[in-house]
Amino acid sequence: MRVGFIGLGNMGLPIARNLLKAGHELTVYNRTRSKAEALASAGAKVADSPTEASTAEVVMTMLADDQAVEQTTLGDGGILNTLASGGVHLSLSTISTALSRRLTAAHAARGQSFIASPVFGRPDAAAAARLVVVAAGPGEAVERVRPLLEGIGRKLFVIGTEPYQANTFKLAGNFLISSMLETLSEAFTLIQKSGVEPAKFLEVLNGSFFQSPIYENYGKIIIAQKFSPPGFALHLGLKDVRLVLAAGDEAAVPMPVASVIRDHFVSAVARGWGGMDWAALAKVVAEDAGL
Amino acid sequence: MRVGFIGLGNMGLPIARNLLKAGHELTVYNRTRSKAEALASAGAKVADSPTEASTAEVVMTMLADDQAVEQTTLGDGGILNTLASGGVHLSLSTISTALSRRLTAAHAARGQSFIASPVFGRPDAAAAARLVVVAAGPGEAVERVRPLLEGIGRKLFVIGTEPYQANTFKLAGNFLISSMLETLSEAFTLIQKSGVEPAKFLEVLNGSFFQSPIYENYGKIIIAQKFSPPGFALHLGLKDVRLVLAAGDEAAVPMPVASVIRDHFVSAVARGWGGMDWAALAKVVAEDAGL
Amino acid sequence: MRVGFIGLGNMGLPIARNLLKAGHELTVYNRTRSKAEALASAGAKVADSPTEASTAEVVMTMLADDQAVEQTTLGDGGILNTLASGGVHLSLSTISTALSRRLTAAHAARGQSFIASPVFGRPDAAAAARLVVVAAGPGEAVERVRPLLEGIGRKLFVIGTEPYQANTFKLAGNFLISSMLETLSEAFTLIQKSGVEPAKFLEVLNGSFFQSPIYENYGKIIIAQKFSPPGFALHLGLKDVRLVLAAGDEAAVPMPVASVIRDHFVSAVARGWGGMDWAALAKVVAEDAGL
Amino acid sequence: MRVGFIGLGNMGLPIARNLLKAGHELTVYNRTRSKAEALASAGAKVADSPTEASTAEVVMTMLADDQAVEQTTLGDGGILNTLASGGVHLSLSTISTALSRRLTAAHAARGQSFIASPVFGRPDAAAAARLVVVAAGPGEAVERVRPLLEGIGRKLFVIGTEPYQANTFKLAGNFLISSMLETLSEAFTLIQKSGVEPAKFLEVLNGSFFQSPIYENYGKIIIAQKFSPPGFALHLGLKDVRLVLAAGDEAAVPMPVASVIRDHFVSAVARGWGGMDWAALAKVVAEDAGL
Repeated sequence: MRVGFIGLGNMGLPIARNLLKAGHELTVYNRTRSKAEALASAGAKVADSPTEASTAEVVMTMLADDQAVEQTTLGDGGILNTLASGGVHLSLSTISTALSRRLTAAHAARGQSFIASPVFGRPDAAAAARLVVVAAGPGEAVERVRPLLEGIGRKLFVIGTEPYQANTFKLAGNFLISSMLETLSEAFTLIQKSGVEPAKFLEVLNGSFFQSPIYENYGKIIIAQKFSPPGFALHLGLKDVRLVLAAGDEAAVPMPVASVIRDHFVSAVARGWGGMDWAALAKVVAEDAGL
Repeated sequence: MRVGFIGLGNMGLPIARNLLKAGHELTVYNRTRSKAEALASAGAKVADSPTEASTAEVVMTMLADDQAVEQTTLGDGGILNTLASGGVHLSLSTISTALSRRLTAAHAARGQSFIASPVFGRPDAAAAARLVVVAAGPGEAVERVRPLLEGIGRKLFVIGTEPYQANTFKLAGNFLISSMLETLSEAFTLIQKSGVEPAKFLEVLNGSFFQSPIYENYGKIIIAQKFSPPGFALHLGLKDVRLVLAAGDEAAVPMPVASVIRDHFVSAVARGWGGMDWAALAKVVAEDAGL
Repeated sequence: MRVGFIGLGNMGLPIARNLLKAGHELTVYNRTRSKAEALASAGAKVADSPTEASTAEVVMTMLADDQAVEQTTLGDGGILNTLASGGVHLSLSTISTALSRRLTAAHAARGQSFIASPVFGRPDAAAAARLVVVAAGPGEAVERVRPLLEGIGRKLFVIGTEPYQANTFKLAGNFLISSMLETLSEAFTLIQKSGVEPAKFLEVLNGSFFQSPIYENYGKIIIAQKFSPPGFALHLGLKDVRLVLAAGDEAAVPMPVASVIRDHFVSAVARGWGGMDWAALAKVVAEDAGL
Repeated sequence: MRVGFIGLGNMGLPIARNLLKAGHELTVYNRTRSKAEALASAGAKVADSPTEASTAEVVMTMLADDQAVEQTTLGDGGILNTLASGGVHLSLSTISTALSRRLTAAHAARGQSFIASPVFGRPDAAAAARLVVVAAGPGEAVERVRPLLEGIGRKLFVIGTEPYQANTFKLAGNFLISSMLETLSEAFTLIQKSGVEPAKFLEVLNGSFFQSPIYENYGKIIIAQKFSPPGFALHLGLKDVRLVLAAGDEAAVPMPVASVIRDHFVSAVARGWGGMDWAALAKVVAEDAGL
């Protein structure tokens, strides 16, 4: 398939590489051009602008935040004005449900389709094509891009026809992970101040009952206090919890635990820890307990 | 070993049965005598009072709450006054750290040992001797009762020498489970009001990432709204979150998510749902979102 | 002074009328033209567009929310492109600090001045020129418009040179009022469920100690359950608490009580009470307690 | 009237002195006898034990906490066993509703009356007989002790016939004061990090709208960071917020703002500030914002 691909960061680059391997014709664009050129030897055509990458029948975007997606899509020379009628914009980014709705309407008004298909997984999973992909959008358009979506992950779930549903899904998932960070931190702090090793607590509880790799991995990071370099930066975690609260607000759903997490991430940023791994949330909880 | 066993409820009865099977000599007591008599055919001697059950070298208690443990231990004719010097009181109940400290001091003052060894697991795990047992107390005493502790579960973890540490451990573990209920409820409500099936969310997220039987089991209960009969009654969940907040207070650890959960359990009780399964926490979250 | 005035709602209309009385030359614009015409007999010139109202040396805006202010200022034919270099945009609206910063920068880039001067007070205070006015902006520009600011209220406080400071000030003030609603609701609910009249509680406490007209007025509204018609609609209260949380986020200040209030307003909207007075927050607190 | 008076701390001493001035015959007891002797010259008889102070027809207690009241009333040689049938125990202390109910039942079982009449006001108000007194108990008994209650304050409010109602009333009042501390701290921190003087904020807002001496006094303490010596120690504030949460729990009323305050007081204690004025809550809020 002829595909434009915009955004070659930690996640976008390995995803694009897998699409090339699978035989798709990619025109790639990245703000920092050098990253795009890394794909030239793998067969990609390197574009000089988002416009140039938007002449394909499908344009995929994997960008950092709302602002980048909005600018690339709705800005001057953006996807919206370049993509042919009948074309598909496939957005892999974690963005707000509000922007997702706006993009859905804007593309529809021009006879184009918008699909949100955020992905779960880290860069190593992206490289191994082991992402979990959650897509929502018009059924016919989703079927058309199915080969692309199946090519980048180990599993594809089509969970609705409204793109914002996939964004909500992703945000709710990230919320659960951050809530595991928060509650594990509260439990660890209590355990530690009671003179017991958190490592023992983790071993007993997760070993016997919870059995979740999330508790396992983050529990170890917190115990080792190994927050740099970040696997996922705390300020991005704050961005995501803001977005889930906004999604809750739109849908009229109070999310008190998300509010607690937001406050702790904000406090972490205030203390200068925004660049650490988001598990550094544990430091806020510990300091609040005088540790 | 000669053992007194007091408290033959859902958990105590199968535990006592396993001790009998393992060849220990049990004198059992239960407020409702009929339950104790069920063990007579298995070889137990049935006592008429806690006093009578406290003449053994080890007395085990598996009682509902602080009040029952306090009354049975410190009340007239209680364990404290009957147990021989050098005897061991082995408490399996989920009690407050404050009471645990008081019992530790009271027993020590009489030359007795107090061991807290709360258990993780449901009645079926108790029946299968598959509990996870967490013990804390004086090392020599713990070694003496090790055969008892190993006989009732699949794993024994000795996590400290201060009994209250095991109580804290248990409460922190229950806190994590209840926090999974709370956060799953918040996520489900958001997902549902966005027009997506919570069951799909559970399948994707827990299937791919969280992989926790806790999310699995409670997710299904919440989706099916099957809160009666309760596996673990909500008012007992409220009791436990009160205790973890009290433990946090004693150790000077703020636990904001525990406070959110407490408020939701209190609200559930106010709405008349105290007798449902504690997963009915989800109903509070849903109603607060207008569902 | 020659003044453009845009936005003639409950607050804007009486404010504009007072400016006319004070002898200023007003060109007024309102989306619904009939409201503007009500001022023609008082000497105002009625404009057909924001553009037409922006040719004066000062343009005042009193609009509902961020979207309206953004559209009127930055949209096609908006104030930014019409106002002369050296002109002043005086914004009375309660808007986000983020938008305030953007407007500050945009006006500065065109040699214009932006002043934020949100007002405290209800429509009746506006009509009586009894508002409390809080202004922030470049000193010289503030001095130039001082007669306007002093003409609409009983007191003017110039609290800084950065416009967003006045917006923060207003949002923090509204936060305190909403927190009095929330905490009074919690106390009333406890008092009522304990079989004591909340009116007695209000009489004793506010009469003796708190002595605040805010508690007095809202206490009576809550006791009478008189939430319609709204003095200030709950969905606007939700808007304001969102803005204060966003301001806190920008300044890296966790505001946990603001989060509680936000959740309760969201819950009220979910239950269909968004159009009631914001004191209907009390209904959420009461229902959560089973009343 | 012949009155026993137990507890001559900061509050009890001036209250007892006023009763003596009004001509009542007092037998006073204090654990530290020297304080009691200070009243001998004013005509009091000094008792050597609570028992000795409980032979009057009315015994008043003004003690620090639940433990002291429980011990003095229900302990060996306590009021319960000494007071004549028909006698009245008048409790001025801020205690839990749970203990209040237990004392009510215990006294009733012995034909005695229990009245709770906590007081609002600081030691200087006690000395000036300017306290606000809130009483609840059996009507006949309240009438009997009315001269005592009217003699110690400027206003007496009889708010119910169940003693615990007065305790709830007092706790709910203290909750409102602590919530003013918390929310003022959040607003101040936001204001300060936005580059505006909190003193200006206080002047504008409380001067114009809130008009509450509570905001005024505590606002000044917070701005001056003058937390020592304490007017009311933070650890006592923590005690009171625990009690209001417990009262809410008993009455099935969630109090989320009380939970926020509790967590902040706990954090303050963890940081070593338990002995400061409870307005030092502001330090927790500020530190969480990186100040």
